[in-house]
Amino acid sequence: MSEASLEALIDALRRLPGVGVKSAQRMAFHLLQHDRDGALRLAGALRAAAEGIGHCQRCHTFSEAQICRTCLDPARDARQLMVVETPADQAALERTGSYRGLYFVLMGRLRPLDGIGLADIGVHPLLERTADGIVQEVILATGFSAEGEATAHVLSQALKARGLSVTRLARGVPAGSELEYVDLSTLAHALHDRHGLG
Amino acid sequence: MSEASLEALIDALRRLPGVGVKSAQRMAFHLLQHDRDGALRLAGALRAAAEGIGHCQRCHTFSEAQICRTCLDPARDARQLMVVETPADQAALERTGSYRGLYFVLMGRLRPLDGIGLADIGVHPLLERTADGIVQEVILATGFSAEGEATAHVLSQALKARGLSVTRLARGVPAGSELEYVDLSTLAHALHDRHGLG
Repeated sequence: MSEASLEALIDALRRLPGVGVKSAQRMAFHLLQHDRDGALRLAGALRAAAEGIGHCQRCHTFSEAQICRTCLDPARDARQLMVVETPADQAALERTGSYRGLYFVLMGRLRPLDGIGLADIGVHPLLERTADGIVQEVILATGFSAEGEATAHVLSQALKARGLSVTRLARGVPAGSELEYVDLSTLAHALHDRHGLG
Repeated sequence: MSEASLEALIDALRRLPGVGVKSAQRMAFHLLQHDRDGALRLAGALRAAAEGIGHCQRCHTFSEAQICRTCLDPARDARQLMVVETPADQAALERTGSYRGLYFVLMGRLRPLDGIGLADIGVHPLLERTADGIVQEVILATGFSAEGEATAHVLSQALKARGLSVTRLARGVPAGSELEYVDLSTLAHALHDRHGLG
């Protein structure tokens, strides 16, 4: 069982996130034995996406057009700009259905240990984007990891210095949680950020 | 985030075994953001495998050539023929390094409830293959599921009727097992098939 093209397929499948050698073998055998159409369709979809999807010139999310549909949508509130780390985060926020403003997608987050600094995550395009005279509030929606928090902190200072109103997603107890199982740091933040009722 | 080629890619990835919509999204975003080379390489590997890999005319395993390397290998013992359900099972048995005979790969196993009968799993080519005058022992290595056992039973009768010696992989306690955690059916089989010691 040492066909070169089978080995090459297993190797290529292993580059997918979360796929080890066992899963890659299972996928390759499955495709060859039961779903060659699926293999060809996946090949076409990979090529079309890798070659056809670029980045929106305004918000940097994935887009086939130069400006993405969200940025072009006149129904969105151009006074609000939400800053996220990745297109995947943007997709998650869109699924909530509770945000009608625009987005700006960073290229990741600050990772000083890996030499990823402000310029690498696209802070200059962000500062340019927010200087359009329309954006009033920048909502920082980077992750709540140490690196995401640091990124939010640094961006917040740069944006405030330009006179923008800067906000951050709330930290707190996840919906549906029992308090006794929530970690202490989250509980402490939820207490600190408590809000008035009615 | 409703680009058509991104949706098509996520759909195509979902056809892989063990990949749900969340994993498919994660894979698509990862490839587009961090590994477009990997996406193109995977596209090429899929196409090359789906178009270049056929079945060995002698044993039916995956093969780029008309006859696979295992069947052509003069160092293998042509008197033994092991019958397996899939090329993946063959690969697993090859990895044990303890078999030097040849193989015959069925196209699955009998599944009477789904209308998969003897002809569908390639019993006629198997009977032809074993009639070469060289094969003496047929080792039935179909799975130990109910369907695999039924397949082995039916094949065994057809092969014995043709004067071949037919054997079956041993059932018993898996290596490394504590007896108290082994299921009763396995223990009963291990007791029944016990063997003499030196």
